[in-house]
Amino acid sequence: MTVSLPDERRTTTIGLYLIQRLKEIGIDTIFEDKNLTWAANVNELNAAHAADGYARVKGAGAVLTTFGVGELSAANGIAGSYAEKIPVIHVVGVPKTTLAKRKAMMHHTLGDGDYDVFYNMYSRITTASAILTATSAVYDIDRVISESMKNRCPGYLAIPADLVNVKVPIPLGTLDYTLPKNPSQTQLEVVQAIVHAIDQAKHPVILVDGDVRRTGMINDVTEFVKMTSFPTYAAPMGIDAINHALPNYRGCYQGSFTLAGIRAEFQQADLILKIGSLPYDTNTGGFSTHELDPAKTIAFQTTKTQVFDRCFEKIAMQELIPLVTRQLFETPIMQKRFALGPPIRRATPTTPGSALSQSYFWATFPSFLSAGSMVVAETGTVSLGSFNLMPLPKDSLLISQVAWGSVGYAVPAALGACLADRSRRCFLLVGDGAFQFSAQELSPMLHQGVCPIIILFNNNGFLIEKLIHPNGAAYNDIPAWNTGRVHLVLVALIEIDDEDGIVP
Amino acid sequence: MTVSLPDERRTTTIGLYLIQRLKEIGIDTIFEDKNLTWAANVNELNAAHAADGYARVKGAGAVLTTFGVGELSAANGIAGSYAEKIPVIHVVGVPKTTLAKRKAMMHHTLGDGDYDVFYNMYSRITTASAILTATSAVYDIDRVISESMKNRCPGYLAIPADLVNVKVPIPLGTLDYTLPKNPSQTQLEVVQAIVHAIDQAKHPVILVDGDVRRTGMINDVTEFVKMTSFPTYAAPMGIDAINHALPNYRGCYQGSFTLAGIRAEFQQADLILKIGSLPYDTNTGGFSTHELDPAKTIAFQTTKTQVFDRCFEKIAMQELIPLVTRQLFETPIMQKRFALGPPIRRATPTTPGSALSQSYFWATFPSFLSAGSMVVAETGTVSLGSFNLMPLPKDSLLISQVAWGSVGYAVPAALGACLADRSRRCFLLVGDGAFQFSAQELSPMLHQGVCPIIILFNNNGFLIEKLIHPNGAAYNDIPAWNTGRVHLVLVALIEIDDEDGIVP
Repeated sequence: MTVSLPDERRTTTIGLYLIQRLKEIGIDTIFEDKNLTWAANVNELNAAHAADGYARVKGAGAVLTTFGVGELSAANGIAGSYAEKIPVIHVVGVPKTTLAKRKAMMHHTLGDGDYDVFYNMYSRITTASAILTATSAVYDIDRVISESMKNRCPGYLAIPADLVNVKVPIPLGTLDYTLPKNPSQTQLEVVQAIVHAIDQAKHPVILVDGDVRRTGMINDVTEFVKMTSFPTYAAPMGIDAINHALPNYRGCYQGSFTLAGIRAEFQQADLILKIGSLPYDTNTGGFSTHELDPAKTIAFQTTKTQVFDRCFEKIAMQELIPLVTRQLFETPIMQKRFALGPPIRRATPTTPGSALSQSYFWATFPSFLSAGSMVVAETGTVSLGSFNLMPLPKDSLLISQVAWGSVGYAVPAALGACLADRSRRCFLLVGDGAFQFSAQELSPMLHQGVCPIIILFNNNGFLIEKLIHPNGAAYNDIPAWNTGRVHLVLVALIEIDDEDGIVP
Repeated sequence: MTVSLPDERRTTTIGLYLIQRLKEIGIDTIFEDKNLTWAANVNELNAAHAADGYARVKGAGAVLTTFGVGELSAANGIAGSYAEKIPVIHVVGVPKTTLAKRKAMMHHTLGDGDYDVFYNMYSRITTASAILTATSAVYDIDRVISESMKNRCPGYLAIPADLVNVKVPIPLGTLDYTLPKNPSQTQLEVVQAIVHAIDQAKHPVILVDGDVRRTGMINDVTEFVKMTSFPTYAAPMGIDAINHALPNYRGCYQGSFTLAGIRAEFQQADLILKIGSLPYDTNTGGFSTHELDPAKTIAFQTTKTQVFDRCFEKIAMQELIPLVTRQLFETPIMQKRFALGPPIRRATPTTPGSALSQSYFWATFPSFLSAGSMVVAETGTVSLGSFNLMPLPKDSLLISQVAWGSVGYAVPAALGACLADRSRRCFLLVGDGAFQFSAQELSPMLHQGVCPIIILFNNNGFLIEKLIHPNGAAYNDIPAWNTGRVHLVLVALIEIDDEDGIVP
């Protein structure tokens, strides 16, 4: 439980202490602006998106920017990590405490002497934040990082330039971000209620959602899915939290955005075991998952468990699910077997010379994937297709901003994912509109020697917007770029139409 | 005083009303994200920077983004307009009021039901803000736009999707953003005190600063400068608020960052007439303008006037300066004449085959400028050189973010400036590091048919950072781009060293 530093060296500097704590949560790359270019991002928003992509692979990420100009540029990325429940630590280099104290009219300020304004703005899009002082730095670094890890949310640490090399004592022990234990008596009651409900059900199904991967529960949930052999579906945010090769995995369920056959199958359920749900409109087919009748639903969540109409606060799924799995194993309950057909996919191979269609692409593309792949899918038709139509090989990741939906996320997020694990093959799927938002992140990709396979969809503009608002407005067209000329990074330029109507 | 609408049509929609009020402050182009692409910016931060560049030419600008993802991406640009005192109206399309009322877990929200969070963040970087409602929309549109114009600061207007077409009554009269009159008795006293001080002075000088152009006072200040014939200097933020061809214009004064000869000349002053000062560190040579002794200084400001140790609140320079000019004209005061040498510039033509030096570039480049040019200079060595070494032809603009200093500003700001006035020739001066931040704005330039002459300085990284922190750190190097291949937009690739030590 003690840090591995020699006894004679019980102090360190605030700067080094911060770096040490970031390493403890698994971070070996920092995404930042020009002032501390370790990952060499081109700008701060891209750096924040890259840190988010990195965190989805490694469990946590960090981004470093300067004060004012840099941190505000990154705000959209950090807010995205908040909405998506990704722990990213935003470290901001701020002016010397002496300048702040005398309210100096410095560049990168608003000129009104308020040095807290950006910290105050950031307190609304982070779970914990601090402007470090010499006396509170150790406490605040630990508090902000551990709260971020516990809540899977971004944290904000501002470090004044004159404090980086200030010596501070090193506390005993590594960073503690374990969750409190569930109340054991209540938990016993919940396990019994769930096992009883499962025993009574004729057609139980499992819906895996976003908090499964985010809480590191993939193995526990896989055990549960295997043990029960119940038909299992994944919401868009949980699509990569379950092995698609399991015989009882059926596909993506997202209400009215679900492929018709899968939805019909799901609707037969008389018991829905919902795990780690994040019920955004974009994760639930625009709240159309109305078949998730509370009277049929058991919801395993990170801070509570809902068994039909009863809510059990403080019963977290992290501790509960392995207990339910064991109890089911030890209890002779009804063996529920289902005549499951083959997975429901639409694959319409096109004839030579005809336009590529969405369904052809999605039926063909997965054959290029192998175990452990990372697919980064931009928001829009690209992500909708990948949720519904792309079986993922074992241990693969699908990285997409389902909830926040910031166009331009995918290119820098792919850089972050590649830096987080160079051993995995990365596929970046992005439309021509979104690509233009952050195209310059190809530069750090080349600089860092990472080489995602980029599939750039030539949709002739913002296709998803055209489908949502089919008014022919010119603002959804974009000036085309001659992207075929991009060198070194493999770019496939594919023209896609939606004649199959795959996009819901 | 009434709006030019037919009598029978005394109502309009909230959306049209907003557009009408924006037109009244001179806006004919809106910079925005993909959802309402009129200026066709590639991303929201670039749109905000472009609106700022536009506003510096036209007097006001507008940027339109979507909720959450779009507005946060633009935050750095809007905060920049705040610091730089540029009125930009940020219009945000937000979700329907019904969704906000039931705290729906929508995409682009943080998932916590708080629909006011971004509005609250924006209230800190705008002078006035509102989320429009059916009943208060007219009042709030007028309030936010007129406060922005009065305070020369950004304003924020969020318009819920279901209110755009709601009918509202049209109020009488155009938008009123005139300033209150100065108290006349006090003003008389101030005029007398100033004329007396000028009469007593042996070596009065004038320092023109940022608020002169921002308050539309160029003509009034030019009259004052011509009338007095006192040696006249400009701070970086005021550099384009005075005609450099006037015989008594001497050059840029910014404390210790001033060319030595100019500084020595300035220091002879026994009376400093400071007009529209914005005393940021970056506008005052890092607060080194210590020769601006208050005991020698009369400061004309937008909300008050300082005559040596006496401060006259509510005496605004807009009304005061023409009165002082007239009084000087009517009063027989000492004719102060100075033996002014030629303008102090360093021009070191290089020999063929040698590296281009900063001083050679700045001595040569101005010969390409003509009356009415717009020079957009990125923060860093480019802007420092242009302040000190570039005489501007008549009616030219120098657009640069002296106070906010957000790297990446210049490319989109040049787009905005070009759209604001297509009749002016625009020169964009940008280093290779900054260029990468927002390079994709070349795309809307081509799309809009504007063609600034781009001079791209191949500094091999962040030169200004290397000069400030000469530690050889790799993070100030950047992966070089093959920018010579860029087509259609004229790009000059120039390698610059700083062997002349021009950069202070």
